[in-house]
Amino acid sequence: METAAILHRPDSEYAYLYQTGDFHVRLRTKKGDVASVGLISGDPYLFHEDSWYKEEQKMELVASTDFHDYWQIATTAPYRRLQYGFHVVDNDGEAIFYGDRGAFPYTSETLANPGYFFRMPYFQEIDRFKSPEWVKETIWYQIFPERFANGNPAITPKNALPWGSKEHPDREDFYGGDLQGVIDHLDYLVDLGINGIYFCPIFKASSNHKYDTIDYYEIDPDFGDKETFKKLVEEAHKRGIRIMLDAVFNHTGDVSPLWQDVVKNQEKSKYLDWFHVHSFPVDIGKNGNNEGARTVSYDTFAFTPHMPKLNTANPEVQAYLLDIATYWIREFDIDAWRLDVANEVDHHFWKKFYQATTAIKEDFYILGEIWHSSQSWLQGDEFHAVMNYAYTETIEDFFVAKRIAPSKMVAGLNEQLMLYRQQTNEVQFNMLDSHDTARLLTICEGNKDLAKATLAFTFLQHGSPCIYYGTEIGMDGENDPDCRKCMIWEPAEQDLKMLDFTKKLIQLRKTYQKILSLGSLEWILIEEEKKVIGFKRVGKEGTLICYFNQGTENAEIELLTHNKVVLSQLTEGTQNQINIEPNGFIVCLEN
Amino acid sequence: METAAILHRPDSEYAYLYQTGDFHVRLRTKKGDVASVGLISGDPYLFHEDSWYKEEQKMELVASTDFHDYWQIATTAPYRRLQYGFHVVDNDGEAIFYGDRGAFPYTSETLANPGYFFRMPYFQEIDRFKSPEWVKETIWYQIFPERFANGNPAITPKNALPWGSKEHPDREDFYGGDLQGVIDHLDYLVDLGINGIYFCPIFKASSNHKYDTIDYYEIDPDFGDKETFKKLVEEAHKRGIRIMLDAVFNHTGDVSPLWQDVVKNQEKSKYLDWFHVHSFPVDIGKNGNNEGARTVSYDTFAFTPHMPKLNTANPEVQAYLLDIATYWIREFDIDAWRLDVANEVDHHFWKKFYQATTAIKEDFYILGEIWHSSQSWLQGDEFHAVMNYAYTETIEDFFVAKRIAPSKMVAGLNEQLMLYRQQTNEVQFNMLDSHDTARLLTICEGNKDLAKATLAFTFLQHGSPCIYYGTEIGMDGENDPDCRKCMIWEPAEQDLKMLDFTKKLIQLRKTYQKILSLGSLEWILIEEEKKVIGFKRVGKEGTLICYFNQGTENAEIELLTHNKVVLSQLTEGTQNQINIEPNGFIVCLEN
Repeated sequence: METAAILHRPDSEYAYLYQTGDFHVRLRTKKGDVASVGLISGDPYLFHEDSWYKEEQKMELVASTDFHDYWQIATTAPYRRLQYGFHVVDNDGEAIFYGDRGAFPYTSETLANPGYFFRMPYFQEIDRFKSPEWVKETIWYQIFPERFANGNPAITPKNALPWGSKEHPDREDFYGGDLQGVIDHLDYLVDLGINGIYFCPIFKASSNHKYDTIDYYEIDPDFGDKETFKKLVEEAHKRGIRIMLDAVFNHTGDVSPLWQDVVKNQEKSKYLDWFHVHSFPVDIGKNGNNEGARTVSYDTFAFTPHMPKLNTANPEVQAYLLDIATYWIREFDIDAWRLDVANEVDHHFWKKFYQATTAIKEDFYILGEIWHSSQSWLQGDEFHAVMNYAYTETIEDFFVAKRIAPSKMVAGLNEQLMLYRQQTNEVQFNMLDSHDTARLLTICEGNKDLAKATLAFTFLQHGSPCIYYGTEIGMDGENDPDCRKCMIWEPAEQDLKMLDFTKKLIQLRKTYQKILSLGSLEWILIEEEKKVIGFKRVGKEGTLICYFNQGTENAEIELLTHNKVVLSQLTEGTQNQINIEPNGFIVCLEN
Repeated sequence: METAAILHRPDSEYAYLYQTGDFHVRLRTKKGDVASVGLISGDPYLFHEDSWYKEEQKMELVASTDFHDYWQIATTAPYRRLQYGFHVVDNDGEAIFYGDRGAFPYTSETLANPGYFFRMPYFQEIDRFKSPEWVKETIWYQIFPERFANGNPAITPKNALPWGSKEHPDREDFYGGDLQGVIDHLDYLVDLGINGIYFCPIFKASSNHKYDTIDYYEIDPDFGDKETFKKLVEEAHKRGIRIMLDAVFNHTGDVSPLWQDVVKNQEKSKYLDWFHVHSFPVDIGKNGNNEGARTVSYDTFAFTPHMPKLNTANPEVQAYLLDIATYWIREFDIDAWRLDVANEVDHHFWKKFYQATTAIKEDFYILGEIWHSSQSWLQGDEFHAVMNYAYTETIEDFFVAKRIAPSKMVAGLNEQLMLYRQQTNEVQFNMLDSHDTARLLTICEGNKDLAKATLAFTFLQHGSPCIYYGTEIGMDGENDPDCRKCMIWEPAEQDLKMLDFTKKLIQLRKTYQKILSLGSLEWILIEEEKKVIGFKRVGKEGTLICYFNQGTENAEIELLTHNKVVLSQLTEGTQNQINIEPNGFIVCLEN
């Protein structure tokens, strides 16, 4: 047995409360090395009295990656305390005990030593990672407000171009999208089926993208006013649609009054400690403060002196940002914040952020923009989820870029799932494109079947999927600014087949939401050469069986007679012999 | 290469800020499997511009356990941000890149993918684990107040027995030890050399051990009053001695007014939510509430209905306990809290506890009683250290119980050291005996040379050592209550040689404190059969070379001419040929 590869970490994604009283335990072993794992567990204060270390529960192999197998079990404890260890048996029958002091021979002497066991000292409900139920049921729709719809021509910027007048918008263009435009199309979104809107920034700023916030307390006048925004939230809520706003708390724009005070007063500014200034003057162009220079005399986002980094360890800055965070919940009833550059802000601040926001709205959703592995932000007291790039990039690497083999995709997805608690995976934010990337259809080189298959695959995974505005009607676009074209509202110019497909996909997600959010994921077919993959989603409410053909030849699969097709593309044939063309897929319900 | 055994975890004891700007990175590999590890790192926003992934820094092999090697490096980042990965080469020359997405072939294509690297997004000073400097310089002395000294006969309990009148004290005995007795002997403690006192509970309670607190705001009248305690702290501080008190916040005694209110008013008690009550009545003897029973109708410590568990998730309970915690700092200037059953209290509470106590006294020391691995409490925002049983038990398993081989002890100690950040290891609380265990001399079966060698070995490790009162004068005692004998003050009855040895050992610890607290630990000799071990402690201020003979035959070691013996026992011979008898040891300074 490869003992050195065995891993468990107490009080982490390897050992956590899922639902109240429901304790999940994971163990990692070398791939293919271990035949069985048993969990030996009981109350720490009954160790000797009950000798519970003589019994065990079988753990299940739930995921495999390139190098590891992951074993898992859900257990409980009548007295809300657990002491536990593992009985690991390899393929040759060699057995060890693995616990808090490492690996030992599996002997009665080893087992009788309570000091060798891991501990879950008490099932603390307050420490349990709780994810908002509604997010599991949410299909997001991302709106870039300047390009979605113009509902109030009276506030359209003077220099705005006619809607959709350029095939490829330029970086500085304005077209007049606004909040009234969103209100006007809420029924379109209801018809589409989505039930959450993720807005790019809407606060006062000078650019079209509004990431250069001037005033966090004001709606940008090009977009509308507070009254309009309030109406938007109310109308959305009436229709069962939640609202998520975008917060940039890592840094400010250099035109913000805060930073301008430092520029004006230098060492004497009352806002000096709101930033990380190393030397003076801080003026752009002086003292090495040039765009992209390594000599900038204060900490910034990346190397741009135009984005001075906020000192979130300063209690005044904390109070300022927390008031903004809560203001939009208190006054406008928003449901979620998406946090820009969330990884570069300190943990202490995010813990306070979690406390402040969830104190007002218990099921508030906090989504961090983090591109790398994020365990330390996802312990239950900072974020509920991160923008799941590592996950969706893996999907795209296989489906779109054709860079990796099916097995590698499966390994990559499993790897990501095993980084987090199950309740985290249930609310991760899965997007295939955004205002920062080329559009899905474009990276698919216009292949709509491929785009649809990729979307469908993503919708069938754990997590909360997001559609970037216009994807549902077949809009394309290269990288920013091309991915920010004006939304097409003329039905004649919309791809109505794509729209119909997206609606069906959303409907499928809603119909089988419990299976897709909460059910297990089992890979049943991985054809490395032919690039055909099959998986099951198994929930209490039933089982979905899914096959995707990403090869260049037709694939034949067999369904049982009691399986009912609920969505498919490019398939033909009878029940027990179904032919799936390249880029085709099929989703069946096992009745 | 055994890729499956490689481990790194960002933002943990594998990747942390040590001093400001000083970032430590660790990697774990299979023991003996890897020849070299290089750290590839740079600023995330200069990845492409600088192509820093083409360079690397060599990591050092700092510790080995039974199954793993640990590699470490201290690095920094000019812009306070770091992206990093590992170049791992095995003994056959096979090379891989290991990063945030796992292991990949070490190719230029792999290296050029920024998504494959780990991230330390920003060096957040507020999130850095800070350990109080003074603890590193502290040698603790644990006092069980009822048995240390009677300084005020006027408050001696009526039923007290004459001091030391029983050879083996009984469980319910009183002897009249008090706080004035401690004040009277502070100069004795100064002469001994210790500079920190860890007091078992001193608050109002009925037993002799005072763990059954009645009133956390009162000094037990058998021990004195607040004025006396204030004087004790002042007099101790004048002499450079810090004061640590014992807090039992997991549960109360059932005689506490809080619980008595629940007993009296049942469902209607205003303190109902201060506890975890599942059914009524809660009276002892009714509703299954019997000692040791599994039917107790409320959560308790272990299975005793006499110790109802507090609901620390209740803000009222939090406010109550935090006021107690801060009261003794605010009013009496104590320096540390030792937290009883700390693992069974929730993380949310301990984070508030850390904030509240360190806000009053920046270098306050928080020590948790946890017997198992404790990473999740030692992230820098809950405890500074835990009672390091796993470490000292490993020492005793080799030295005293003779249960394990030298290599197993070394592996066990290294395993524990690698569980925590370096600054945690520097302030861990290392005790060989206490009021809860048989005394060191007793478990050594009266062998004073062995007891001294074990003490010396412990004093030469990282962490802050603790002497249990009386150990310095050769007191013995079986398990509780026998380990709680009255302190012997008659010089004729004290072991003055042991006292002299202890003073020398304390002096050594103080003289070489920086080397012993901060220096590295290198094992230079592990003789498995002969049970002779040698190690170096290497600091900026010099190097200590230490040898211990735990075998049954004499051992010969050779010193270089420039080595100066600073402490030894049972040794003879000349510089280049020193003979160490069984239970002997030698500590030399490399000049």
